[in-house]
Amino acid sequence: MSAPLPPLAAIPADVVAACDYAQRVGQHLDANALAYLQGGAGDEETLQENCAAFADFRLWPRPLAAVSDGHTRCRLFGQELQHPLLLAPVAYQKLFHADGELATALAAGALETPFVVSTLATARLEDIAAQAAGPLWFQLYWQGGRAASLQLLRRAEAAGYRALVLTVDAALAGIRNREQRAGFRLPPGLSTVNLENVPKPASTVAASSPVFAALAGAPTWDDLAWLREQTRLPLLLKGILHPEDALKARSLGVDGLVVSNHGGRVLDRVPASLHALPEIRAALGSGYPLLLDGGIRRGSDIFTALALGADAVLIGRPYIAALAVAGPLGVAHLLRLLREELEVCMALCGCPTLAAIGPECLQAG
Amino acid sequence: MSAPLPPLAAIPADVVAACDYAQRVGQHLDANALAYLQGGAGDEETLQENCAAFADFRLWPRPLAAVSDGHTRCRLFGQELQHPLLLAPVAYQKLFHADGELATALAAGALETPFVVSTLATARLEDIAAQAAGPLWFQLYWQGGRAASLQLLRRAEAAGYRALVLTVDAALAGIRNREQRAGFRLPPGLSTVNLENVPKPASTVAASSPVFAALAGAPTWDDLAWLREQTRLPLLLKGILHPEDALKARSLGVDGLVVSNHGGRVLDRVPASLHALPEIRAALGSGYPLLLDGGIRRGSDIFTALALGADAVLIGRPYIAALAVAGPLGVAHLLRLLREELEVCMALCGCPTLAAIGPECLQAG
Amino acid sequence: MSAPLPPLAAIPADVVAACDYAQRVGQHLDANALAYLQGGAGDEETLQENCAAFADFRLWPRPLAAVSDGHTRCRLFGQELQHPLLLAPVAYQKLFHADGELATALAAGALETPFVVSTLATARLEDIAAQAAGPLWFQLYWQGGRAASLQLLRRAEAAGYRALVLTVDAALAGIRNREQRAGFRLPPGLSTVNLENVPKPASTVAASSPVFAALAGAPTWDDLAWLREQTRLPLLLKGILHPEDALKARSLGVDGLVVSNHGGRVLDRVPASLHALPEIRAALGSGYPLLLDGGIRRGSDIFTALALGADAVLIGRPYIAALAVAGPLGVAHLLRLLREELEVCMALCGCPTLAAIGPECLQAG
Amino acid sequence: MSAPLPPLAAIPADVVAACDYAQRVGQHLDANALAYLQGGAGDEETLQENCAAFADFRLWPRPLAAVSDGHTRCRLFGQELQHPLLLAPVAYQKLFHADGELATALAAGALETPFVVSTLATARLEDIAAQAAGPLWFQLYWQGGRAASLQLLRRAEAAGYRALVLTVDAALAGIRNREQRAGFRLPPGLSTVNLENVPKPASTVAASSPVFAALAGAPTWDDLAWLREQTRLPLLLKGILHPEDALKARSLGVDGLVVSNHGGRVLDRVPASLHALPEIRAALGSGYPLLLDGGIRRGSDIFTALALGADAVLIGRPYIAALAVAGPLGVAHLLRLLREELEVCMALCGCPTLAAIGPECLQAG
Repeated sequence: MSAPLPPLAAIPADVVAACDYAQRVGQHLDANALAYLQGGAGDEETLQENCAAFADFRLWPRPLAAVSDGHTRCRLFGQELQHPLLLAPVAYQKLFHADGELATALAAGALETPFVVSTLATARLEDIAAQAAGPLWFQLYWQGGRAASLQLLRRAEAAGYRALVLTVDAALAGIRNREQRAGFRLPPGLSTVNLENVPKPASTVAASSPVFAALAGAPTWDDLAWLREQTRLPLLLKGILHPEDALKARSLGVDGLVVSNHGGRVLDRVPASLHALPEIRAALGSGYPLLLDGGIRRGSDIFTALALGADAVLIGRPYIAALAVAGPLGVAHLLRLLREELEVCMALCGCPTLAAIGPECLQAG
Repeated sequence: MSAPLPPLAAIPADVVAACDYAQRVGQHLDANALAYLQGGAGDEETLQENCAAFADFRLWPRPLAAVSDGHTRCRLFGQELQHPLLLAPVAYQKLFHADGELATALAAGALETPFVVSTLATARLEDIAAQAAGPLWFQLYWQGGRAASLQLLRRAEAAGYRALVLTVDAALAGIRNREQRAGFRLPPGLSTVNLENVPKPASTVAASSPVFAALAGAPTWDDLAWLREQTRLPLLLKGILHPEDALKARSLGVDGLVVSNHGGRVLDRVPASLHALPEIRAALGSGYPLLLDGGIRRGSDIFTALALGADAVLIGRPYIAALAVAGPLGVAHLLRLLREELEVCMALCGCPTLAAIGPECLQAG
Repeated sequence: MSAPLPPLAAIPADVVAACDYAQRVGQHLDANALAYLQGGAGDEETLQENCAAFADFRLWPRPLAAVSDGHTRCRLFGQELQHPLLLAPVAYQKLFHADGELATALAAGALETPFVVSTLATARLEDIAAQAAGPLWFQLYWQGGRAASLQLLRRAEAAGYRALVLTVDAALAGIRNREQRAGFRLPPGLSTVNLENVPKPASTVAASSPVFAALAGAPTWDDLAWLREQTRLPLLLKGILHPEDALKARSLGVDGLVVSNHGGRVLDRVPASLHALPEIRAALGSGYPLLLDGGIRRGSDIFTALALGADAVLIGRPYIAALAVAGPLGVAHLLRLLREELEVCMALCGCPTLAAIGPECLQAG
Repeated sequence: MSAPLPPLAAIPADVVAACDYAQRVGQHLDANALAYLQGGAGDEETLQENCAAFADFRLWPRPLAAVSDGHTRCRLFGQELQHPLLLAPVAYQKLFHADGELATALAAGALETPFVVSTLATARLEDIAAQAAGPLWFQLYWQGGRAASLQLLRRAEAAGYRALVLTVDAALAGIRNREQRAGFRLPPGLSTVNLENVPKPASTVAASSPVFAALAGAPTWDDLAWLREQTRLPLLLKGILHPEDALKARSLGVDGLVVSNHGGRVLDRVPASLHALPEIRAALGSGYPLLLDGGIRRGSDIFTALALGADAVLIGRPYIAALAVAGPLGVAHLLRLLREELEVCMALCGCPTLAAIGPECLQAG
């Protein structure tokens, strides 16, 4: 493997879809970063199934409809979005580009796309906010206890972040064999700068094993109820797959959910995000905000997720690949490609607005 | 890749099926033409599924039946056909053979096969008609408005075209990544000669994006109702997949439909043509003319489509491959092979006529 | 491809299953013979599916049963068989071994296995009978008319053949693309010697095509009723897949059926033999003799076919491969392997006799 | 193939899962031992399906549950286990490591894991018991008659073995084509030392074939009833797949079952162990001890088996691979990996104890 290439300064003519970035990213990253970006838990079955799940559905073209006044706008938590597409929280973005989260924020702003900043960012929350021309949301990893978690939340509020996304599906980092085999570590010079002054709760638990001991620092439903009281920001849970958990979250005042399995990075052989979505929507009924994360690679995937009950979707690996290949320009280009693919689906399926996209737009299995 | 070979002057002994032409076509075309011929929308899943769908069905052999008086003749719109097989509209045929549509017309006439000439032909409608020994139909792409579209229709009527096929599933060209990556363009010297004097309607639409703006030039159900009034030719819609659209088309006086997804070239991840057919036939009942387009590679495919409700089928890519490999001789040879394969299916399945081919000829899934 | 090796004089130690013969046969045959042996109709999907169909079923092991008094004997048409396995009619056997059908007869006799001799044998019926130590059946291809067909039947009766198997699924030779591409022809010196003095009926049919013209020489249900009157031999039809044809055959006095698609050599994309079997058995009820042909490669395949309603099975390609690789010794070895594999299945599934093998021996799908 | 490497003295950093041992084992064994370890019956479909069956199920993550007091302990037959994982009986362990069963016993003891010692061990039962720091069970192959079998049982009892596992699914060795092709034989110097003084019953059976003759030495239900009377040890049957056999075993006083197909080594194309499990559990109801053997490669597999009704599972090939690659250290490492993977599943699926793992933990098919 030769040395990674720097990001390209212009988009090559043959990069025309998300898969083209994914295919080129190996030229722009070293093996360490690549293992982190491409790897998942265990045998990576869920990672692959997240994408494959979309192929279970077929879109109905509906020609001759009058849709030239169509658009992709929507509202989420009182915020107007140009399209139902957000940038998912991804840690350590300076692994992939020298400017890391700052570069991502630049692209997100250019395309008016909300960027969900990770607790594990390699740039300061405040610096990202200063750079951002568009809306930012904050993704919170529970910091082992309430005080530490609250400190991060307050910083995000102060910096103008507009929603709080609590990730609940990573109580453990997950057994990522690809990373283990590659000996993944954060390179010298990079760090999770936002955690530098966050206190670590002393562990006093007597557990049967390191695994169960680690769970003592994970949030519980009680912690969630407490967190709900601490902020007026819209509160989302990221990492819900089971309908009962969706109902419980709503009953505790959670404002919305991200149906997700953490991109197949935490536990292998769980349901694909898309496969979990319809049951959750059925349990919640219409009107409750649902986002989906995992496997979005095409505008038709966005369309399918919306038809099955999502209000919007997030992408993770695809934009990181674009960031590594062509920097903020790549991320913006990717966002434009995906929006255009979505528009083509809507136009050809006779849906002038997102609200028109429903289950009847898909061929019955 | 070496320079493309000229068309062969004789059929090689080992070219015995449509797939043999498809396999050889790469030797006779440059990368530009090949990308146009072989490519489809997006990841080309629908392109592949169009073919694969036929493998979901099994034919019942019925030996000992008396079928020696069998034949493949049928009537469509008052026209007698020697076999239920037509040449689909394919644009830019001089990309594939120096004589383009004129060569195709020659072969079609030799085998008494209707040839559906594309709006985007690279030869003049009148010249093709002069060359043709067999029936011609005219495929119309809506020209952004009624006057321009009507002008083309009148020319086709005047030149003796015997049916009008309005393509409705390509309001947008589709995102054909393979063509984009190959940088496809019409080579110098080729042009869509029939559009040279067709007026382009001025676009006055304020749309949310280029995609939705483009839709302003696409036909609507209202345009279709108007078009129906303009001609006494049999009027078909090409590109219908949803049963409700089929019913609506019939109610507006359309004479027949081509169940089609444009060979998977416009929108990826839509139903395979064959998978859409049974529901459309069920909605319409018997007697209404249905053609199918997409994935026909064998006589058994024709038999299957007819068993599921089609009255006839069209082939596209297969005859273009034959045209590139061996010119009009190749197209005629391919038509003969497919008809012979169909005859063998009929003979061995105990069906002396096309009317005898019904759902009971297929093994229940 | 180097020159074919002569048949081996001893069985190599690593030839332990039918698949080992299939894998080695390419070393012992030229491309012409190989295309005939291995090829099928069209894309050879049915050829492959014949084998793959068996993998749809699972056997139930039933330990602790007392089966040491078990055996594989059965009776068919009053004849006692050592095992429910016959050698299917295969044409042109001198293509595969210098002694052709005479070699096969030798092996069949050694293992007390009925050998169904093809009309298209390359040795005289009488010579094969002289060589055979075991039972012979005669496979009849209709000779275009009654008189010619009767002449062959009478010769077989006179030579002591013990059953008549009329092949009905090959009214046409089928479109075998692999053979066509290889330019298959019977080599000089080989001929279908039993047809030398059989009169060819003059064709007086005016048909719409060569395909339908050829059907004029195929047998019909009327011919079958006539044939039934001509002989006291047990009469079987080979090539029945549809339950209605099975019922009709029985009603005309046919003594048994071979559920078969001619090894996928005549029409592609028809049901696998095994997939057609259960419905035929259900239509006929118990007691009516059913044989199955197509895809048998293992003793577990025999067991599965019997559990689904067959009384016995035939193998074709596997024994020809064994014949080419190791002559009569190979055929005998193969028969022994298959019988032993069947015995192991019976013993481990708690079935001391063939009669004990029923649908309850298979895991419900 | 170069000479096998000796076992490693330390675990390489990139060995992080059972599959890593399986991938490396070929470097540490010769072709003879490898054929024995990796091979199965026939075409090895069941061998592969044992593993693949687990992929039919998906686990439900249940975040926010309070599980830090979790553990993997359970009780079986009055014995406390640290985790629901046992080492299956595997013959001839000195083929794979110089210390064979003694090495395995060392690792099993270190991880407090029951080791089921095979009748075909290459070390004496008493020597293994002297080495073992953890619980031993004894696997009995019926020795052709009662007296011989009893002699082995008494030795195991005297040496302190704590359960008796009668293997019932190998009345025949099975037709293992891979071993046959490799010419597998036990190398000079290795022997099944525990059988040295065991009397061989004289065979007096007149059978129709060697296969059926061999069955005369297999145990029957009557033998089982007799065996049950001979010992106070917990008695398990290994190799039950059919629910009726499970019920019969329980009615005869058997204490528990190992749902198993002998790792696909005896009869090919039988149900995967996991596919047989739910029906057996449904037949028996809750409370009756069920173990499962076959295809366990991940902690998620253990979790799935438990969710479908198993109380514990056994691993075979995986630990032998670890033994060959890195000796007792490898076996202990593998056991720790699997336990940790199971703990991660439990923690993330909200199950603090094994008792909490039920069918509701899996996504409905």
